[in-house]
Amino acid sequence: MGKVVILMGSKSDMDIMKKAENFLNEHAIETELHVASAHRTPEKVHKIIKEAENTTDVFIAGAGMAAHLGGVIASLTIKPVITVPIKSSLDGLDALLSCVQMPPGIPVATVAINGAKNAAILAMEMMAISDNEIKDKLLNFRNSFKTA
Amino acid sequence: MGKVVILMGSKSDMDIMKKAENFLNEHAIETELHVASAHRTPEKVHKIIKEAENTTDVFIAGAGMAAHLGGVIASLTIKPVITVPIKSSLDGLDALLSCVQMPPGIPVATVAINGAKNAAILAMEMMAISDNEIKDKLLNFRNSFKTA
Amino acid sequence: MGKVVILMGSKSDMDIMKKAENFLNEHAIETELHVASAHRTPEKVHKIIKEAENTTDVFIAGAGMAAHLGGVIASLTIKPVITVPIKSSLDGLDALLSCVQMPPGIPVATVAINGAKNAAILAMEMMAISDNEIKDKLLNFRNSFKTA
Amino acid sequence: MGKVVILMGSKSDMDIMKKAENFLNEHAIETELHVASAHRTPEKVHKIIKEAENTTDVFIAGAGMAAHLGGVIASLTIKPVITVPIKSSLDGLDALLSCVQMPPGIPVATVAINGAKNAAILAMEMMAISDNEIKDKLLNFRNSFKTA
Amino acid sequence: MGKVVILMGSKSDMDIMKKAENFLNEHAIETELHVASAHRTPEKVHKIIKEAENTTDVFIAGAGMAAHLGGVIASLTIKPVITVPIKSSLDGLDALLSCVQMPPGIPVATVAINGAKNAAILAMEMMAISDNEIKDKLLNFRNSFKTA
Amino acid sequence: MGKVVILMGSKSDMDIMKKAENFLNEHAIETELHVASAHRTPEKVHKIIKEAENTTDVFIAGAGMAAHLGGVIASLTIKPVITVPIKSSLDGLDALLSCVQMPPGIPVATVAINGAKNAAILAMEMMAISDNEIKDKLLNFRNSFKTA
Amino acid sequence: MGKVVILMGSKSDMDIMKKAENFLNEHAIETELHVASAHRTPEKVHKIIKEAENTTDVFIAGAGMAAHLGGVIASLTIKPVITVPIKSSLDGLDALLSCVQMPPGIPVATVAINGAKNAAILAMEMMAISDNEIKDKLLNFRNSFKTA
Amino acid sequence: MGKVVILMGSKSDMDIMKKAENFLNEHAIETELHVASAHRTPEKVHKIIKEAENTTDVFIAGAGMAAHLGGVIASLTIKPVITVPIKSSLDGLDALLSCVQMPPGIPVATVAINGAKNAAILAMEMMAISDNEIKDKLLNFRNSFKTA
Repeated sequence: MGKVVILMGSKSDMDIMKKAENFLNEHAIETELHVASAHRTPEKVHKIIKEAENTTDVFIAGAGMAAHLGGVIASLTIKPVITVPIKSSLDGLDALLSCVQMPPGIPVATVAINGAKNAAILAMEMMAISDNEIKDKLLNFRNSFKTA
Repeated sequence: MGKVVILMGSKSDMDIMKKAENFLNEHAIETELHVASAHRTPEKVHKIIKEAENTTDVFIAGAGMAAHLGGVIASLTIKPVITVPIKSSLDGLDALLSCVQMPPGIPVATVAINGAKNAAILAMEMMAISDNEIKDKLLNFRNSFKTA
Repeated sequence: MGKVVILMGSKSDMDIMKKAENFLNEHAIETELHVASAHRTPEKVHKIIKEAENTTDVFIAGAGMAAHLGGVIASLTIKPVITVPIKSSLDGLDALLSCVQMPPGIPVATVAINGAKNAAILAMEMMAISDNEIKDKLLNFRNSFKTA
Repeated sequence: MGKVVILMGSKSDMDIMKKAENFLNEHAIETELHVASAHRTPEKVHKIIKEAENTTDVFIAGAGMAAHLGGVIASLTIKPVITVPIKSSLDGLDALLSCVQMPPGIPVATVAINGAKNAAILAMEMMAISDNEIKDKLLNFRNSFKTA
Repeated sequence: MGKVVILMGSKSDMDIMKKAENFLNEHAIETELHVASAHRTPEKVHKIIKEAENTTDVFIAGAGMAAHLGGVIASLTIKPVITVPIKSSLDGLDALLSCVQMPPGIPVATVAINGAKNAAILAMEMMAISDNEIKDKLLNFRNSFKTA
Repeated sequence: MGKVVILMGSKSDMDIMKKAENFLNEHAIETELHVASAHRTPEKVHKIIKEAENTTDVFIAGAGMAAHLGGVIASLTIKPVITVPIKSSLDGLDALLSCVQMPPGIPVATVAINGAKNAAILAMEMMAISDNEIKDKLLNFRNSFKTA
Repeated sequence: MGKVVILMGSKSDMDIMKKAENFLNEHAIETELHVASAHRTPEKVHKIIKEAENTTDVFIAGAGMAAHLGGVIASLTIKPVITVPIKSSLDGLDALLSCVQMPPGIPVATVAINGAKNAAILAMEMMAISDNEIKDKLLNFRNSFKTA
Repeated sequence: MGKVVILMGSKSDMDIMKKAENFLNEHAIETELHVASAHRTPEKVHKIIKEAENTTDVFIAGAGMAAHLGGVIASLTIKPVITVPIKSSLDGLDALLSCVQMPPGIPVATVAINGAKNAAILAMEMMAISDNEIKDKLLNFRNSFKTA
């Protein structure tokens, strides 16, 4: 079973991105978590993606402002990349547009501003296409809403 | 191999959403394409999702204005749902926010405004997690940029 | 005399939506109040609408972010649906656009961001078309501004 | 049976607001249609509302830019007022916010930018609370989507 | 010498609008200050304008949300009307657009969001066209910046 | 009787700003019209203001994008300055905010995007505070709406 | 004397970015011009920057939508990077925010939407800090406004 | 070696703009810092620029709301001008657009909202075009990210 690699552009994004890691770990999905900036440490981002690519099913990137991290990762791999726009200025509108408005050819899957938990669920939905165990976990999670 | 089911809220979205169908068919991915509105024909949407769910890997939804189609589909299935905000008013900002700002628990993967082709590529990236043939197609497609 | 059924997408919307219930109850309008999400519990929303439809004059829906609840209710009934965009991100602009930009055929009556009290007044105005008792209550309420 | 009175702030709004009149007339709802500006001819607006009020079930107001017409009408009557933001600058965002962000006490029911047809449907939904004939017309209209 | 009449739509606007009154009074300009809503108490607004019109040089209106007060006053008089958009939702963008986007024929002079002091200075600049005493006060005020 | 001096930042603003000149000339108000950029020819702006100041009642400035012209004029004179945001990018939102959001101490009277005619009317309203002839012209103009 | 290297993300940006090249060449500044996408051909961008870096004084990057090109270049060099947001959707607001909202540590100098000519002038201003010949050219260009 | 002159429109911008001064001083770049408003004290701005111009390599301007300071400085000199939009209303969007949307001919280099530190780095990058000592300082600073 593959893992999910979570990157964020700054330590200040940790509280939000931890929600993705927590949700995945609660459902026994292996994760890696890195702080690496597309702008300040592009080589580090490159190295993480290249080392992890073969054993990773999905990448999740959280970044604020001119949030390029998801796009940079997507330029380096054909694995699906989910991006979480982090609110740090302009109510997160800058991060949202920087994440979602990717040009033709290199898609990134964008979730809501600060929506790290949904990024984790979406990653599991992608993995569940071919993994019935994860599919059952998602069905259980979905059913939990009915009795909440 | 699973298929990709493409829905759109209105016939006027057809020109844009055809780009998703075309890209997938060019890469020999089976598709279904439906016009069904989350608001005007909710039973039809429900029927399409329920009938297709077991044989479908990914759903793609295109809709404009208060673009609820992707969210409605996501509420009915745990298969990954990709949504394409269609520009028809307010430069597409209304559709973008209606698509991407999903509440916790039910994610939708949003791509750029009118970004139907990227929705198709993203769907293939999800399928390629477990399908090496699709993975090779994506690598070929990605390599084509280098010689363009 | 019919009742007004108030739904909200999340418990966190309760403080705001209670203002609608309170205003209606102060004017002796019968209400029902439910927490039900268009995304997490669509069957519950469906069940509430179908059970209440015949004895309900107006539905009021409060929701934030990609606020689909009003649109989903309107897709299930021809009773008038009033929707209250709830501010939880982007200053409520996402909720406002998700509520108000409904496509042709299925209208929703949108009030101001967090404007639950106005939703209640508007519901009474609709009922007062054929109910002189409610009409008198509204006239009294309106007159109260003159002496405030 | 009451009538629906349609006002618009400028002759340039006529093409859009005619869609409301047409839809109502096609369903045999009596209408009146006036061009009257909240700013240039406030007395005319006042006179229309006062003369029509007793025989009118619903007012519909279309206006662009700083779209005050709906709010001005609502300040003069307790009949429900539906407002259609007309796009003439800023993609209609100015008209939308001027319509929908009404202060507590005086609600206006806002529909989508240029959404005159939905305003007509919403007016009929309000009238159908107590009028089974209109209710049947709405059910027929709603059913027409299924066979479209 | 004429006076400046200041109106605001709600008591909650008082702290901001007092800055206009204070600035004018510090410069010995006579003022009147009223709380009157264009929506809740339109007759009161009408009465204030008609009674004050002949002895007033400039009207200043402060209002938030769908800020119609300035436009309503301008529809009732040819005296210059200055409007202060008050921030109470959407960072004041709704109030700004409702104030400034007046249709042709009925202008309103809009100042910055919450810019009540500038409204007072602008009123004095208008009065100073024909009043050298006020002109000297403005020159003194302007000169005070140089030594600040 | 004083005159109104109209400036615009670029020749491309001429069609819109001519509407202000035309309206004033139709009402026998003397005007001067200049093309002068706050950025490209600041000395020219400075010279125009200083030469015209004593014989001018009101300045009108039209500018697009980062529309600083009104603010620059206001920094040079205590005569009232009316500014017309010109739409040339971002639907005119950049020009609107650059015009209206003036800091405390130096007000500018902002009218609607491309609202040059309203700028002319507003200038006349300011002059009419002390000029009964202009006041009568404005009353006639206002009355013309009633018979339009 | 160093050169200016101009990159753009897509051939469709050529008409706009040519204005930068033309302005520089008219002033005898050496230029290189490349089409290279930060997302589709990141290695090509990397190669261009690394090969040109030592002989280049300023980089200019033009890109639309999620305009990451300027940020990616800035992550690879300490030479000043000027970025031109290209309008291709949302009136260019997405490109503007993606360009300008760079995180601390890696600045990019952003000019107006589609402002390629200003990017060229700004590049020359940077070079003129230590190059009196370019300084004289800029002074001549600036003086040309006075006689235009 | 030239210096960097930092101006800001208001004392309230000091905390943010001090970050630019601190960064430059930490790297032994000489600075001057002034509070001078483009609107309230235009002569002071003019005097500072003219006195400093010959010994200054780069100007940095911080301003909020209708942030004209950078544009005014750029109109007075051909030295590069960097502008920092300061957030004081509308989340800083007004300041950003007032800074960045400069018309053709007079560029200003805009950095992120409140991005004073990046303004300092960008100034050093401009100076490093011809100053190897500053270049080495920037390379050291850039390398510090790798070990952070």
